[in-house]
Amino acid sequence: MNYKIAPSILNADFSILRQEVEVVEYAGADFLHLDVIDGLFAPNISFGPSVVESLRKHSNLIFDVHLMIQDPGRYISDFIHAGADMISVHAEGNPHLHRLVYQVKYYGKKVCVAINPATPLTAVQHLITDVDMILLMTVNPGFGGQQFIHNVLPKIKELRELIMNKNASVDIQVDGGITPEEAKLCAEAGANVFVVGSYIYKHESSEDKQKAIADIKNTLKAID
Amino acid sequence: MNYKIAPSILNADFSILRQEVEVVEYAGADFLHLDVIDGLFAPNISFGPSVVESLRKHSNLIFDVHLMIQDPGRYISDFIHAGADMISVHAEGNPHLHRLVYQVKYYGKKVCVAINPATPLTAVQHLITDVDMILLMTVNPGFGGQQFIHNVLPKIKELRELIMNKNASVDIQVDGGITPEEAKLCAEAGANVFVVGSYIYKHESSEDKQKAIADIKNTLKAID
Repeated sequence: MNYKIAPSILNADFSILRQEVEVVEYAGADFLHLDVIDGLFAPNISFGPSVVESLRKHSNLIFDVHLMIQDPGRYISDFIHAGADMISVHAEGNPHLHRLVYQVKYYGKKVCVAINPATPLTAVQHLITDVDMILLMTVNPGFGGQQFIHNVLPKIKELRELIMNKNASVDIQVDGGITPEEAKLCAEAGANVFVVGSYIYKHESSEDKQKAIADIKNTLKAID
Repeated sequence: MNYKIAPSILNADFSILRQEVEVVEYAGADFLHLDVIDGLFAPNISFGPSVVESLRKHSNLIFDVHLMIQDPGRYISDFIHAGADMISVHAEGNPHLHRLVYQVKYYGKKVCVAINPATPLTAVQHLITDVDMILLMTVNPGFGGQQFIHNVLPKIKELRELIMNKNASVDIQVDGGITPEEAKLCAEAGANVFVVGSYIYKHESSEDKQKAIADIKNTLKAID
């Protein structure tokens, strides 16, 4: 399996973001996971298009902008113009999810649909052949540093089966409370893209941050 | 008059915020104006408590957090814990403005009420003796780089008279499209705190940013 690491800067040091991104890129990250939260779709206010634009010129990572905001269609074009390579939109609160997916695809960008821990797979099952990735939240969105919710594991397995039954090629991303131990459980259930936040950015030194990424990578390599 | 300069980082380079703040602090800024926008109270999504917290440890400027968000009372304590010295709340959309003002004062912090260009002074007149500062927006909030709205000038003059008639000591802040020319007009009308964003951060080099602040300071010094 082609596993991918997607560091989230939600708990990074926002006074030195360029360095915070460069350290994970150097350590072999694949995506940069950018958590946009408006304080209404989920608690916490994080950052918006200007932060994405400021980082874009310093990084070649795939920028995945995860929109945890009300009525995300209002901001899709802003984030794409800021430099997003992929946009993730939630099923919850978005009655026209198919339209949102095609709003992203219209710009030729990758698209992901996300669901929260209590949301069933039925919320995304009719979009499996339309999207590049499905994100199963393994915490309730809002803050870094939360505990992984183990009840999501059977949902990962079921989603991988749904995707295989359709002969589709869709990444399954997990986000929330991921350490090497949880990454292993998720990978065994069928996930292949791992958002990692606090496990990296809780460390002060660049060496420790890079070691955190290596820990996850080595754990995943041992599964293959 | 004791004039104060409040650089806004809304148009700064978010990949190197520490440097962006240090350069204006070194140039003699008084406040750091932190524009928090949620995409619902005003267009644009800017940043939240984590950005304030990350900058706090690098700066001794007075942090004025300008909340352009729905239902700001939900986030006052978060921003104070992140390091705000002053919180600015808007009159528009907040039916319990007196309560919001005292929610900030409860923490022993400075408080400012803000009104948009079309909002009349009647929206804040009964709070003049309760607040430290009143912010008269000179653009519609949301984005840096907008044109100053000259129709606000008579409102500044009228507010300064209202404050003097009450023998109160309240700062009048202006925010939006401020260059030396507009700073002069606003100061002559009675404003004494000047939010300056694009006029500083449109420049690439530290020298040019510092010169922009010196330009404003020198213009104000010539009025005294």
